Amino acid sequence: MISFEEILAKYKPDSEERSRIDSLRDNLLKQIHGFLASNRIDARPVLVGSVAKGTNLKGGDLDIFIVFSKKYSTGEMEKTGLKIGHTVIPGGKEKYAEHPYVSGTIDGTKIDIVPCFDITANSKLISSVDRTPLHTDYVLKNIDEKKMDEVRLLKLFMKRAGVYGSEIKVSGFSGYVCEILVIKFGSFIDVIKMFARSKGPVVVSEDDSDVIRFHSAVIIIDPTDRSRNAAAAVSEENLARMKIASKMFLGKPDPGFFGKPKDFVASPYRDRGTVQRIFLLEKPDIIDDVLYSQAIRFKGIIFQILEEEGFYPISSEFAISDEIEVFVECKLEVLPKTKVHTGPPVDTPNVKEFIEKWSLGNAVRGPYICGDRLCVDIELDRRTIEEVVRKRIMEYGIGKNIDPLKNAMKIIDPSKTGRKFLVLGKFYEESIL
Amino acid sequence: MISFEEILAKYKPDSEERSRIDSLRDNLLKQIHGFLASNRIDARPVLVGSVAKGTNLKGGDLDIFIVFSKKYSTGEMEKTGLKIGHTVIPGGKEKYAEHPYVSGTIDGTKIDIVPCFDITANSKLISSVDRTPLHTDYVLKNIDEKKMDEVRLLKLFMKRAGVYGSEIKVSGFSGYVCEILVIKFGSFIDVIKMFARSKGPVVVSEDDSDVIRFHSAVIIIDPTDRSRNAAAAVSEENLARMKIASKMFLGKPDPGFFGKPKDFVASPYRDRGTVQRIFLLEKPDIIDDVLYSQAIRFKGIIFQILEEEGFYPISSEFAISDEIEVFVECKLEVLPKTKVHTGPPVDTPNVKEFIEKWSLGNAVRGPYICGDRLCVDIELDRRTIEEVVRKRIMEYGIGKNIDPLKNAMKIIDPSKTGRKFLVLGKFYEESIL
Repeated sequence: MISFEEILAKYKPDSEERSRIDSLRDNLLKQIHGFLASNRIDARPVLVGSVAKGTNLKGGDLDIFIVFSKKYSTGEMEKTGLKIGHTVIPGGKEKYAEHPYVSGTIDGTKIDIVPCFDITANSKLISSVDRTPLHTDYVLKNIDEKKMDEVRLLKLFMKRAGVYGSEIKVSGFSGYVCEILVIKFGSFIDVIKMFARSKGPVVVSEDDSDVIRFHSAVIIIDPTDRSRNAAAAVSEENLARMKIASKMFLGKPDPGFFGKPKDFVASPYRDRGTVQRIFLLEKPDIIDDVLYSQAIRFKGIIFQILEEEGFYPISSEFAISDEIEVFVECKLEVLPKTKVHTGPPVDTPNVKEFIEKWSLGNAVRGPYICGDRLCVDIELDRRTIEEVVRKRIMEYGIGKNIDPLKNAMKIIDPSKTGRKFLVLGKFYEESIL
Repeated sequence: MISFEEILAKYKPDSEERSRIDSLRDNLLKQIHGFLASNRIDARPVLVGSVAKGTNLKGGDLDIFIVFSKKYSTGEMEKTGLKIGHTVIPGGKEKYAEHPYVSGTIDGTKIDIVPCFDITANSKLISSVDRTPLHTDYVLKNIDEKKMDEVRLLKLFMKRAGVYGSEIKVSGFSGYVCEILVIKFGSFIDVIKMFARSKGPVVVSEDDSDVIRFHSAVIIIDPTDRSRNAAAAVSEENLARMKIASKMFLGKPDPGFFGKPKDFVASPYRDRGTVQRIFLLEKPDIIDDVLYSQAIRFKGIIFQILEEEGFYPISSEFAISDEIEVFVECKLEVLPKTKVHTGPPVDTPNVKEFIEKWSLGNAVRGPYICGDRLCVDIELDRRTIEEVVRKRIMEYGIGKNIDPLKNAMKIIDPSKTGRKFLVLGKFYEESIL
């Protein structure tokens, strides 16, 4: 039998970590209170995130929101928020979510100081960041020590399955969604049973009428805002992954289902009897969510071009290393020298003109009859993946950060180099377990 | 301006040929009458074909039918017919259409002596051969000298366009159909105008209700049998060819539109940036109609196999030389080393079994999620055109004459040999003009 206690003993913060985090938190809150008082600012610091909710794993972050009165403008709120952040985190860096915020590390713990507005449950939407303190309140009112550990188990399970995190990079389940699920179903194992049993989309709501507006793989109505799907980020594929992991776990419970996600390492080329290409772009200095969404779009466009042009792509993958790496595997390396140019239907008067035009020797073959039309084979000028993609990629807007880099795109045939690529490791080793 | 007189002067039998054919005909008929009388056979010889109808071209055949009373059994009729044939054509050979008959050459003219039964117009069908004397009667009653020459022009035009002949090898228009068309529309040029103007199927009938039962490219109701489509042999492609040739001729009338069909000659390989293969079978000693229909089926099956197995065939052709030659042009020469094996939907309990089976190292990649299912990449054992076609061709019945020859099929890559093939000439030079 599997021992959940042993798993928790390994991944739950120990007493040393807890007391270190507690004193770090107290110290930060004291400093912020001091700043707000001496500058007469109508705001209050609120500890949010998993530490506030008692569902944090070993080595987790400390997130403090500064909740401003709505009397301030967004500009004032953001400016003051950054100032407080820089004051309490020496050497902190500015980052950008819905509002700018300061992020840094103290004593090995990552700390975010995020400004936001004071809103109430189910009130008119201001921004999703502003809603975070409400999530903390909701969870704290509905959770107990036992359930906090159940949430930890669910997070560890989802991490290992590769579906934990609502950022675009993962497109999975957030910590808040884990908390809602455990509160709703009672325990880790009941959540797992729900996923293992479920067919089609997973829906969790108190009122069916709230669900209608959403068309996501997973719909979990936010208890603090009925108009919001807390699980909107979860992709179809990650729901499938979670269903399968749940089925496998129930069949054979094992500690191996908990912990860190599988790590991919760079791999050299493997011969699969296919045509493999890696499209490399310089990595722009932008936040992950923007980077990943543009990289995914880049991958999709490359695949589409190769499909339209007849290289028969069969698989694709992407990875972010020092560069944006897009991998595509095709069946065809070089297009035929000719392509069929379809002319008018044989029943139209245009056939005369078509035949006269193409009988002058500028067709490679024909005119001949193809079905109810005339056709000729004409010469193709661009025939390699490199020629075709370089030309056609310019027709697409991929994203404002990537577009200026398209000209410097490198196209690599991995069979011609000993170099290892992260995207090859990710592709070759992709597996559900 | 084009001179139809000049064309006729070139292709119509001259007086020397006419008197030679006349005396050959008289001599044959006399011999047959003698045989029938001395053996007390209730039958009469009837001259049929284009000579009988006055629509013959230079060097045409002489066809004599022996029309037997219906009191004889089919066996008696056929046996006696062959005996007469051998008597009047020294060294004649037996051939097989609906009834066996004797064919041979006297003074450079090809002669067929064909036995058949005596039937009347629109009577219950006995066989299509038995109907031939009725066709001769119908044409002779409805044609005059002028129209005989119009028929000759139409035949010459159709020959050059490659659509003359109802045998499967051509799948075009018979001489009888040419006669019906000229009788119906009045002249060669009016028939050409009809084809040039027509859209979709071409239909010629006195009564629309006769047409309903047919679904052919061309429907020309036989004036001697309303239940028969005299143009059933014409393929869609040959109708298209005739329409286009008619349009081109009306645009620019030229003697080049009359005469012999374009001849194809054997050609060596030409590089088209594609994968070309020739599939060779020994030519069985059977009549052309059976040979061509089995060869066409053979070509279709090879194409279908290559399509199903993922070689992306784009063109095909066949030719009959000393062998049956089938040509197929593909985009892909060798299949990838792996193929995707699709597993159960993620929502079914079967996923556990599938994952356990394929996680033992016998999958090249995966299991991974593909859409709403699990997939693995598995190793492919047969990857070349040669391996795949040799295996899969055995699953098909192509025809009783070809099936025993499949084992000895040769598969040739024409880029690897200097040898010329008729089918390559036919494919490379295919053109509407």
